[in-house]
Amino acid sequence: MNNETMRAAYYRGDKTFVVEQANKTAPKAGEVTLRIAYCGICGTDMHVYHGNMDARVGLNRIVGHEMSGIIEAVGEGVENVQLGQKVVVRPLDHCGDCPACNEGYEHVCHNLKFLGLDTDGAMQEYWTVPAHTLHILPDDLRLDHAALIEPVAVACHDVRLSELKDGEDVVVIGGGPIGILVAMVARDLGGKVTISEVNENRLAIAQKLGFDTINPLKADLASEINTKTNGKGAEVVFEVSGSQPGVDAMTTVAATRGRIVMVAIHASKPTIDMFQFFWRELRLLGARVYEPQDYEKAIKVIKSGGVDADTVITDISPLADIQAAFEDLDRNPTAMKSLIKVGELA
Amino acid sequence: MNNETMRAAYYRGDKTFVVEQANKTAPKAGEVTLRIAYCGICGTDMHVYHGNMDARVGLNRIVGHEMSGIIEAVGEGVENVQLGQKVVVRPLDHCGDCPACNEGYEHVCHNLKFLGLDTDGAMQEYWTVPAHTLHILPDDLRLDHAALIEPVAVACHDVRLSELKDGEDVVVIGGGPIGILVAMVARDLGGKVTISEVNENRLAIAQKLGFDTINPLKADLASEINTKTNGKGAEVVFEVSGSQPGVDAMTTVAATRGRIVMVAIHASKPTIDMFQFFWRELRLLGARVYEPQDYEKAIKVIKSGGVDADTVITDISPLADIQAAFEDLDRNPTAMKSLIKVGELA
Ligand SMILES: [Zn+2]
Ligand SMILES: [Zn+2]
Ligand SMILES: [Zn+2]
Ligand SMILES: [Zn+2]
Repeated sequence: MNNETMRAAYYRGDKTFVVEQANKTAPKAGEVTLRIAYCGICGTDMHVYHGNMDARVGLNRIVGHEMSGIIEAVGEGVENVQLGQKVVVRPLDHCGDCPACNEGYEHVCHNLKFLGLDTDGAMQEYWTVPAHTLHILPDDLRLDHAALIEPVAVACHDVRLSELKDGEDVVVIGGGPIGILVAMVARDLGGKVTISEVNENRLAIAQKLGFDTINPLKADLASEINTKTNGKGAEVVFEVSGSQPGVDAMTTVAATRGRIVMVAIHASKPTIDMFQFFWRELRLLGARVYEPQDYEKAIKVIKSGGVDADTVITDISPLADIQAAFEDLDRNPTAMKSLIKVGELA
Repeated sequence: MNNETMRAAYYRGDKTFVVEQANKTAPKAGEVTLRIAYCGICGTDMHVYHGNMDARVGLNRIVGHEMSGIIEAVGEGVENVQLGQKVVVRPLDHCGDCPACNEGYEHVCHNLKFLGLDTDGAMQEYWTVPAHTLHILPDDLRLDHAALIEPVAVACHDVRLSELKDGEDVVVIGGGPIGILVAMVARDLGGKVTISEVNENRLAIAQKLGFDTINPLKADLASEINTKTNGKGAEVVFEVSGSQPGVDAMTTVAATRGRIVMVAIHASKPTIDMFQFFWRELRLLGARVYEPQDYEKAIKVIKSGGVDADTVITDISPLADIQAAFEDLDRNPTAMKSLIKVGELA
């Protein structure tokens, strides 16, 4: 690989991205350099844009982790990959020697580095990453669809932790992009999914995707679920709303021994109905990012169409327009997924 | 069985028990009549005494469910039991046809009747119960010790749901009678138990029983557990305190993927640190009463001495003195377990 330059988008603080020429770097031992095709804009990237994460990311950071690309160059000692292979990156770098890593929970390593936040990310034409973060894609998977693998892997992790079984009733509280992906993955496994959402635009999308929906501001969610399930309740509940009403609802719709997955990040401490946890022996499961098997599942579910990628991807902009893409998304909080076309691969 | 009378203790409201003569009843089909040896006073019975459950139990109720006895008479169709056998009763009568029963969770049946609250209980010389509630005891198990089986079965259920493994670190938040039993059962399975308790009398008992203890008003619980576990935290946490500080503590001492069992009944809704649930993928498990295997485990752990029955039983009174026994226990909230010697068996 020669020393030519490439384009990269830098977050420089104050809701500003700047696309500049940068030097390509060659992969060191154990690393791989990728040519990036697409990179989705994550909710976390929007937090960066709003300046909420300046202390963590600094003011000269290349963000982006919901990417797809091909292998451009391979460092020493890296095996089982070939130049030109389609890949995605599982953007977690763990320490390998903490209580979590020692138990095999490397995805929640106590010293976890998240690529694209704690290091530079994929909003650049060439990205160099540790080889252990790669997942090889099927040749025939479209690279725009592949940019959904990271957020779909989050949903696959949530659903896997729920131990959802075919035919079980599922309530997804919150029908934004994450809630919809969780709902799609749960339905793909045989879950009978109802989405609870207060925004009518989001409800319309969910209905178009074939989901049962309830607007809890207009109907009584608990009694509707009670009726739908003949008094049983939902075996699996995903709290994706991040709101106190969502937390209040989750204990009212869960079946006896129901599993409630806490997908949302609650920055403030909600009040939770512990009596219902006792009375119905409910279970609450915290879920964070993903493990390798969740990535493999996400690849499968996108390839099979279990996740309808074309409906989820609502917008694709070239890297040069990254500033406008963030501004548009910021003005349109009910949009689904916006991608940046970083390179000229697809 | 003839129609002679027996003595029974009736709750008549207003902190009053009255011991009177009552008619013995013969077992109907599927029932068994027991001659009661001992019956412990449960926290629930204290709630009855205080008038908090009048709407549920009425003003002419025989309470008591932490009992031991022998088989006195057997109704039609009851098999596999013999007169004179030592037994205890698992005081749950389920409906057999609700969503919980249909899933095999009969102990949390939606129409559950609790014997000794929703029906008359064991504070009477002869008690007639459905045969399906019986557990046969080993001949050599002492009947006073056997009166602990019910509360120990609660602890066995809590510990079984936690999926505690040998060598794991355990924090029990709250060192009252239930917390101590949970701690004993967890230790018996190989858990390395620390008890957090604010009452010095209870701390002294816990220390005498060989447990590591912390008074969280005098030391920083989270940092002590962090040090004891080399930064890992406790794989299993039991919240037995029923207090907001206990709920605050539970998320600070749990290891990554730690299991927190909600043993206490929180009548008001506590605030809970959902960010820690996300960050460390914690799990919260609601636990209620027990299943048959928890009774079998409780019998074993009492017989083996894993639960030190003689230390737990602090007081035994005859049935005639039941009023004084409740009054004494009410004045001494840090006492362990008081038994009523109901009959003349042991
Ligand atoms: Zn993301
Ligand atoms: Zn680590
Ligand atoms: Zn009890
Ligand atoms: Zn039932």
